[in-house]
Amino acid sequence: MKKTLSDKVINRLTLYHSILTDYIEKGIEYISSPQIAELLHVDNTQVRKDIALLNYKGKCKVGYKAKELKILIEQTLKFKEVKTAFIIGAGNLGMALAKYDNFEAYGFNISALFDNSPEKIGSMINGKEIFNLNEFPKYAKKYDAKIAILTVPRQHAQDVSDYLINAGIKYIWNFTPCVLSVPKDVQVWNENLIGNFLQFTVNLNV
Amino acid sequence: MKKTLSDKVINRLTLYHSILTDYIEKGIEYISSPQIAELLHVDNTQVRKDIALLNYKGKCKVGYKAKELKILIEQTLKFKEVKTAFIIGAGNLGMALAKYDNFEAYGFNISALFDNSPEKIGSMINGKEIFNLNEFPKYAKKYDAKIAILTVPRQHAQDVSDYLINAGIKYIWNFTPCVLSVPKDVQVWNENLIGNFLQFTVNLNV
Repeated sequence: MKKTLSDKVINRLTLYHSILTDYIEKGIEYISSPQIAELLHVDNTQVRKDIALLNYKGKCKVGYKAKELKILIEQTLKFKEVKTAFIIGAGNLGMALAKYDNFEAYGFNISALFDNSPEKIGSMINGKEIFNLNEFPKYAKKYDAKIAILTVPRQHAQDVSDYLINAGIKYIWNFTPCVLSVPKDVQVWNENLIGNFLQFTVNLNV
Repeated sequence: MKKTLSDKVINRLTLYHSILTDYIEKGIEYISSPQIAELLHVDNTQVRKDIALLNYKGKCKVGYKAKELKILIEQTLKFKEVKTAFIIGAGNLGMALAKYDNFEAYGFNISALFDNSPEKIGSMINGKEIFNLNEFPKYAKKYDAKIAILTVPRQHAQDVSDYLINAGIKYIWNFTPCVLSVPKDVQVWNENLIGNFLQFTVNLNV
């Protein structure tokens, strides 16, 4: 893919991928765009347009071959390119993400967690060790880590972010509710949970 | 606000709100659009356009009054309208969300958690009780709950979703990696974490 995919397309493709995974698990061979559209409560033409971006055509009457479409999405979204990431902050959210096995299917290899709490350091979560945050620079260098998943308490977010960037981190997936101040060559993806949900509630008048 | 705000605008407004909260905590009275733009690595004109949607104008040279702008965002995004929600699934992610005190500032009142694990039922998380999932219909009726935050394991997602909908739930904030099949009058917001992050990595060639 030379073309840049829009955020919304990427987001929908990952949802189609989940649906395809379910279908394949159930032994269903074909899926149609109306079936996908109905599950996501979106328009059928939207689904067809998205899949057309992958240069993939379904068969008349039966739809898309689930396995082929799944592989095509994986190639487009580069699921097979392994991206090593560290979780910084072994609180509830950090633990939940460490236990989330699905990340691997998407090419995310969470190789370790870091925390500064003595009672956590040294324990294992889902096969991943919790290391002392002090040792982060050493590991970052060893694994040439570029991605950090930030799940520390709000009040430490900026200081820890500065520390990670000093150790060579270039991409931060920020789960804290803080807007981090970072140099121009560092990219932050703000996982703005509440902002996501407000997109849903504000216009629906929940 | 009669006008519908786009998802991206809503998302950015919540980030501006975080920045304003920080500034106000630090005792800073004014904030300029370039200051916001720099923190978010976005264009200054974008920030000004978003804030113009709120019919708010900054003062020349000094910028926006932080407290006023903050209140205006809260009104626009209806932070003061309390939305009662239940967390379904008291695993790590459910616990992390229950402990996330910031939700209240946004009008989310997480009133209880539900799980089916005997060792969890009856315990308290951040002042919220974990009830037996069997009792959900009773509580849903009592509190007239419309929103459920779904954090159960993947394999139970569809069954639990059916159960919640039967009990009157109309909005599901779905943190599971499943695409749920729901009736037309039920809205699902898929918190597609991996899709969000792939938006970031795919086009950046991480």
